[in-house]
This record gives sequence, C-alpha cells and structure tokens, in this order.
Amino acid sequence: MLRKQKPVQDSFVRMTELVLPNDTNTLNNLMGGRMMHLMDVCAAISAQRHSNRIVVTASVDNVSFREGIKLGSVVTLESQVTRSFSSSMEVHINVWAEDIPSGTKIKSNEAFLTFVAVDQSGRPIDVPDAVPETAEEIALYEGALRRRQLRLVLGGRMNPHEATELRALFELE
Amino acid sequence: MLRKQKPVQDSFVRMTELVLPNDTNTLNNLMGGRMMHLMDVCAAISAQRHSNRIVVTASVDNVSFREGIKLGSVVTLESQVTRSFSSSMEVHINVWAEDIPSGTKIKSNEAFLTFVAVDQSGRPIDVPDAVPETAEEIALYEGALRRRQLRLVLGGRMNPHEATELRALFELE
Amino acid sequence: MLRKQKPVQDSFVRMTELVLPNDTNTLNNLMGGRMMHLMDVCAAISAQRHSNRIVVTASVDNVSFREGIKLGSVVTLESQVTRSFSSSMEVHINVWAEDIPSGTKIKSNEAFLTFVAVDQSGRPIDVPDAVPETAEEIALYEGALRRRQLRLVLGGRMNPHEATELRALFELE
Amino acid sequence: MLRKQKPVQDSFVRMTELVLPNDTNTLNNLMGGRMMHLMDVCAAISAQRHSNRIVVTASVDNVSFREGIKLGSVVTLESQVTRSFSSSMEVHINVWAEDIPSGTKIKSNEAFLTFVAVDQSGRPIDVPDAVPETAEEIALYEGALRRRQLRLVLGGRMNPHEATELRALFELE
Amino acid sequence: MLRKQKPVQDSFVRMTELVLPNDTNTLNNLMGGRMMHLMDVCAAISAQRHSNRIVVTASVDNVSFREGIKLGSVVTLESQVTRSFSSSMEVHINVWAEDIPSGTKIKSNEAFLTFVAVDQSGRPIDVPDAVPETAEEIALYEGALRRRQLRLVLGGRMNPHEATELRALFELE
Amino acid sequence: MLRKQKPVQDSFVRMTELVLPNDTNTLNNLMGGRMMHLMDVCAAISAQRHSNRIVVTASVDNVSFREGIKLGSVVTLESQVTRSFSSSMEVHINVWAEDIPSGTKIKSNEAFLTFVAVDQSGRPIDVPDAVPETAEEIALYEGALRRRQLRLVLGGRMNPHEATELRALFELE
Repeated sequence: MLRKQKPVQDSFVRMTELVLPNDTNTLNNLMGGRMMHLMDVCAAISAQRHSNRIVVTASVDNVSFREGIKLGSVVTLESQVTRSFSSSMEVHINVWAEDIPSGTKIKSNEAFLTFVAVDQSGRPIDVPDAVPETAEEIALYEGALRRRQLRLVLGGRMNPHEATELRALFELE
Repeated sequence: MLRKQKPVQDSFVRMTELVLPNDTNTLNNLMGGRMMHLMDVCAAISAQRHSNRIVVTASVDNVSFREGIKLGSVVTLESQVTRSFSSSMEVHINVWAEDIPSGTKIKSNEAFLTFVAVDQSGRPIDVPDAVPETAEEIALYEGALRRRQLRLVLGGRMNPHEATELRALFELE
Repeated sequence: MLRKQKPVQDSFVRMTELVLPNDTNTLNNLMGGRMMHLMDVCAAISAQRHSNRIVVTASVDNVSFREGIKLGSVVTLESQVTRSFSSSMEVHINVWAEDIPSGTKIKSNEAFLTFVAVDQSGRPIDVPDAVPETAEEIALYEGALRRRQLRLVLGGRMNPHEATELRALFELE
Repeated sequence: MLRKQKPVQDSFVRMTELVLPNDTNTLNNLMGGRMMHLMDVCAAISAQRHSNRIVVTASVDNVSFREGIKLGSVVTLESQVTRSFSSSMEVHINVWAEDIPSGTKIKSNEAFLTFVAVDQSGRPIDVPDAVPETAEEIALYEGALRRRQLRLVLGGRMNPHEATELRALFELE
Repeated sequence: MLRKQKPVQDSFVRMTELVLPNDTNTLNNLMGGRMMHLMDVCAAISAQRHSNRIVVTASVDNVSFREGIKLGSVVTLESQVTRSFSSSMEVHINVWAEDIPSGTKIKSNEAFLTFVAVDQSGRPIDVPDAVPETAEEIALYEGALRRRQLRLVLGGRMNPHEATELRALFELE
Repeated sequence: MLRKQKPVQDSFVRMTELVLPNDTNTLNNLMGGRMMHLMDVCAAISAQRHSNRIVVTASVDNVSFREGIKLGSVVTLESQVTRSFSSSMEVHINVWAEDIPSGTKIKSNEAFLTFVAVDQSGRPIDVPDAVPETAEEIALYEGALRRRQLRLVLGGRMNPHEATELRALFELE
C-alpha cells in the first residue's frame, strides 16, 4: 500500500516569543534550557502538522549557542519537517534573536530534532511521506539519511563501519 | 602560570524532580523540552561548582529519548564536569526515571553539554583544570577531545580531515 | 518636522502556541485569561517592531470567545499595526485554533489593542507613521479613527455627541 | 417555571496579588496580558459562585490601562455579577494598585466580562436570576442591557439600527 | 520615642485563588507546598501593609492539612497581623476551600507566620505597634507571646525552663 | 500480620535547585513560600520512596528562615523518612544555600513534615516500618514520638496533660 504524500511546507511553523525575566540567568540572558524547551515545542508542532498525530521527542541533534540573547529580545523560531521514516520525522529548526531598540536580527541557533508519531496508547504509527519541493528542501531531505546514521552511531545502535553515508563525510568532503 | 587544579568530583550534582501536570503532553508523559530544560539546569550547576562563576550554555550534544516518563514519576539527574579547556567545561549527565508504585528505576537519557564561564560583563574567563580520579572519570576525560572535535565538525568550524581524534572512530573501532 | 514612515507590514508577527495542561480549565479548554495574555504578548511585539521601543498596553477592545479550544490544540496568532497616533499604535490581531487529529483550523478571536511607546524612564515617545499598502490594510487604517472614538467614549474621556466618526455608525450604516 | 433568585452580593470576590518578577516587562511594570489573566480568573470565580457551575469566558469589554504598576506592588481585584441572561452572566470588576512604601492605593482598571455556565459536556445551562439590592447594584443591573447591545453590535451580531438601548446613548445623554 | 500605632485591621488581606492543574498532585488535589506558597504570599502582604516595608519570612508555625482540595476548587485566604515586636510581626492566617458545584465552604488550614521588615539593604527596621481592637484580635495579641516562646524553644534559642508563658500551657490549662 | 520492614536510608532524596528570578522578592532573595514549596516536594518524594504510594502532606512543623538566599544561589535539600506510624510518615529535611562565587555553603533550614500514604481513591493505606540504622537515624526515630505529641497538642487534638513525652521536655531537660 502506498503511503500518503504530503509537502514538507505544510508542516512549516513560526513561533515568536518575548524573553521574559524567568527565562533568563543572572546576566539577564536567555538560558540555554529555556531555548531548548522552545525549540522542542516549535518542532513538535511541525511534526504534529505533518502527521496529524500526537508526537513524542525521539532525539535532538547537537545544538550550539552563540551570542547571549538579552531580556526583552524577541526570539523567532521556524521549523519544518525534512523527511519521514515510517513513524518518525526529522524536523529542521532555525532560531533568530531580534534586538528591539536596534532592529537587528541575528541567527542564533539551528538544529535537527526527530519525533515519533504515536496513537492514543502511545504506540508508534505510520506517517505520510514528506515531499520536498524547493532546492533547499531537497538538500535537507537528502542529508537526512546521513544525519540519521550519525544519530545511530552516536547512540551506540550502529557500528561506525556500516555508516556508509557518514563515512563519506570524512573521506570525500 | 599554572592553572588551579580541582577534582572533577567537586562538581557532582544530583537533582531530583517530580513530573507535574504542566511538564507533560496530552499522553501524560514528560515533554522532551522540559527534560532538556532540567538537564541544562543540572549540568550548569556542575559547571558553576567547578568554576565558581556564572556559566552560559555553549552546546548540547545529541540527546536520545527512550521510554515515555509518566506524570507522577520521579526524575533523577546526576552531572559532573569531565574536562575543562581554558574557559569552557564539558559536563556529563545521566538521567533516570523512577516509577513510584513499582519502585523500578530505569536509565532514561545520557548527554554531554558544554558551558563557558564568564565574568560579570559576560566575557569568557579561565577556569581550573578538571582532575579525573576514578577509572570512569579518566575515560570520560580522555573521550572529551574526540567529542570536542565532533562538535567543531558538526558546527562547521573544523574540516573533517583535520579531526584526527574523530577519524579514528571510523577507521579503527 | 516630518515623522519617519514605516510600512505596517514590517510589524507583522505570527506566534504559534501549544495548549498545555496549565493553560486549561477543568473542562480541558484553554482559559480566556490565558488567551488574552497570549494576544497581549503577540500584539506588543508588533508594536515593538513598529516603534523599536519598549511599549506598554494602553487598551484592549472588546474580545469575544467562541468555541472552546481543547488541550493539545495549536493556537496561531497573527498581529500587525494598523495605524499610529504620535506615541500610540493600534494593533489588529487574529487568532486561529487548530485541531491536530482532524487538521481543521478555525478562526477563534479577533481584536484591537493599543500600545504606547515609552523611553527608558517610561515617558511616551513619538513613533513612525504607519503606512498601509494593501486594500485590507487601508480599510483597517481608516477604521482606526472610529475605533479610537469608541474607546474614548467608553472610557468616559469623550462626549458621545462629539464622536462624529462613531455617530455615523448608528445613523448611516 | 420560575428561575432561582440569588443576590448579586453572593458572587462578590476579592483577590489580592503581589506583582512578581515574571509578571513584569523590562521597565519592571506589570504586563497588560498578566493583568487581563488575573481579571479573567477573578471574574470567573464570581460567575462560578453565582451559578455553582463551571464557566467559560464569552467576552471581555474594553479595558483601559492607566499608570504602570511597579514590581512589588499589591494588586487588589474585586468582582461581582451584575445580571444574568439564561445561561450567561455579566461580571463587573474593579482593580486597584497599592504601592507599599507610600501606602497609596489607586484605581487601575475597571471592566465588564461575560461568562457562560456549562455542564460537564460543555453545553450551556441556565443560571439563577441575579438580584441587585443596593443603588449601585441596581444601576449596574440596568446598564447591562445597553452593554449587551454594544457587544452584539461590535461582534457583528446585531444591526446598529436595532440597538435601541445603545442609540439612546448617542442621542439623549 | 514612641512608636507609631496602627490598628491590626489595616493589615487585613483576602486572597482568592482557583486551583489549577499545575497546583495539583496525581490525585488532582492541591499540593501542600503550593498551599504553603499561597499562605506565605498572603501573610507577607499583611505584614507589608502593616509596616509599609519589604518583609522577609522569618518563620512558619506548625501547619496541618485536612481534607484534600480538588482541582477547580476556590481557595480563600484571610490574614492579619496579630502583634509586632520591634522589627518583626506575627501574622495569623485562615484558609477555606470552596467546592463550586455544591457551594460548600470548609475551613482548611490555620497558621501563624512571622516576618521581619527590612530596608533596601536588607537590614531589620522598626515597625509600628499593632493595636488590637476586637475581642478576637485581643486574644490573638495576647497569645502571641506564648507562641513566640514556643518558636524560640523549638528553634533551640531559648531554654524550655525559661519559657514561662509556655510552661503555663502544660501546667495550668 | 507483620508489617514490611524498610531501612530509612532507602528514602533518602537530594534535590538541587538554582534560584531563578521568579523565585525571588524585590530584594532578589528567595521567597519563603517558594522554599516551603521545594521542601514539600523533596520530602514528599522521600515519603513516596518509602511507601511506593501517592502521598499527601499532613503537616509541616515549625520552619525558621535565617539568612536571605540570593538570586543565582544553589539550594540543596536532603530529606529522609525518620519513622512511620500505620499510614503516616515523618520526614526530616535539611536545606543548604551555596553561594557560587565564594563557594561557601551554609545551613539554611531544617524541618519535619508528615505525609499520609493513600490509595487511588485517596484513602489512607498502611506503609512499611521505617528501620533506622545509624546513630543519627536512631535519634531521629526516637524523637519522632515527642514531635508527634507536640503536633497533636498544637493542633488541639491532644490535651497537654496527656502529652507525657512532651512534658518531659519542660520538666527534665
């Protein structure tokens, strides 16, 4: 049976948040843990829009934090599903921080998260195929296999020698 | 000038948390974003104990989530600095979920986070050397270089060919 | 002196939020007060983007709540400045509720809020002129005077007989 | 069948709240959205006391915000049902802000909210008649019809020409 | 120099709160810790009203919890200063839980808390004398000495043999 | 029938918390109510570990607060069951505050709380006997009877003359 097809753009989500006192550390900067919480919620909504299901976070790839984001700044998060694998979906997320007085907006973070769609009893359930359309969406779709191998290797569930997609990264690029 | 030496055990932190309604999704399971928030706070306290400084989150390595953790469960997080590099520190964290009625406790997550110690103006400042003592601490200390290269490669700040520590992972293991 | 001109579209904000347990009443529906809180934050970011200033809420016009919004639903808010008057700005906001399992999205609320831009001491400060471009933006811009009179009459700061814009509503429409 | 009668005073509620850091903006003033949240909770308790039912917010009339309320201030809210219409109730609320060091207390807001009483399935259900007793309660009771027409006109559910109570406001006062 | 006199009634505070999901345990009852948080905030406002100062909690006397308070219930707290001692104040608080469907209201807790008034640097500062007027206020005023001795004995700062007020409790009552 | 025996050490819990902005008053010190909330959660987890049941707070004994704890400090709570009585358990808790820049850690609070284990309907249910092993555990176990009488006397449920354990405190020590 063929799986339902769904354009990845249907899962696009934009969240905008104001950095409030309780989100900040004693330097008045947004705490990393609060940022990760926001990223998880935003990406989860993308996965829910793609699957029309409750989703649970399966993994979060490496996240780097650059400049501190000040109290009172505006944080914008944009996420979209890149590819689906039976019941799981990879979601790509970009985060920007905007300083209101200067009107400047800088890229703050970028990450990949994966989610599993589940039924009401919490059991994994199949999701539609994610169909990329633009050049950028296709590039993200194609890189998804390599990132998946990296997750399996890092999680100790794949032998590095079998990670053919990943090995290419170290030998050819 | 020699840097101050400090045993990694001085940075040990154990946090215990009860899963409350607002931490959960519609399946009554702890949300991934909330878990990452807890992991960031616990690991940050380890980095603060090691450095006696305010710290900011620099990165979070891959995190995998296994079984759902039910509302009413007890989550235990234990973190400790593994190694320091001038102003940055790598922290290792383990997370367990404990089901009260059955008394069972299962490993839920494990991750590495890095933090940078900063002064009151937010500028990076040197931290003591982290001194491992037990066999497990020494293994974590030695693996820190390889994980650091992986972060740099994944963050696009190091060419995979120069990541000598990391290449070994794919060629020799 | 001429005031700076700024397209109203520059102040567009889209917020996306997941309805979590603590946002709900005992029927598991989003509470009205929580919705108003979200509307205020979203509209305030629009006013901040228009003015590049800290803003304070000056008023909220009538808000009606229709269908209950269930726990686990996704709420999308979209706001944009309609017109500015020296230091104050009117912001228009639309809210939709999206049910994940069925994929349906229905209009939930619509409202107008006004904000005043202030300096660091909290004193009102002039903001750029808001320039409408599309037909819808122009209609909202033109209706702003009438809504302003209604606010003044309802707030007891204008005699109904002097509210010429508003009287037209009852005599001519 | 006659509806149960209940004095409006039985629905009186006084809430007292301390302005905490997370309730404030970057000027250390209480945010408008947080104030509306408090007003909704206080007024909802009045409607619950009148109806002995779960209630849902149906509308909030124009709210104006005057002086900023500082971090550490005490906010007092007092609400009471003014009149009921089958399953809906109008609630009047007054808000004061109290500065602790100076001991001064100033009127901050005043608003009307409406609520609908619902049964466990969320269906509207009749509530007792609200019986005003003092002169002030009678004035609020009588003004309720006019405010109701204004809500219907503003919500696009009544033609302004049919709003006889409301027209009087513009022609006679 | 004579201290300022102030009737204890000027410090009366009534707080009304709705029990929301995040305030409850897995049995859907209000958690004891959340109740103590509410009691501390309410009593602190009484102490602030009496002293027109920032106050810090110095102690909380024994608190007993009776019946569980259900999600959706209304909690009413009423507090008033009983007596002041140079920079400290004892506050008496009563708590009731109200079940909305049945309209029943039962006494839930009663406690005494003490607060110290401090200046901007956190140093203790004298407060007005608290003047009781009604019979109940006078009884609370007179019992304050005995409760104070009990706190000192329990805190290890007074020898039980010197607690003359307290000894009477065991020998004469 | 003999009750199950369980060492008190099995109920040991250590919680570590960072003092965040919303936990503090306008002097940037941890609020007493927030501290009591943390103490209740930590002690409840000890009681849950001992009983493998949902527990409800029955009482909190006198708590004294000493030095203010600054924003950004680390709070460590350690709790353990001291003794059980059919369905109730007494828990002892110690709290330390740690200042990160200076690395100093001072004792902040100490308290006894009691909890009752309940079944899914909220009815009290028997718990295992708590078995003390170290000298300190035995001392706490033995003092539990006297503290229990004090609670009953203070709660008006025991005549002071019958509190034989407690009378000794005033006559013999």
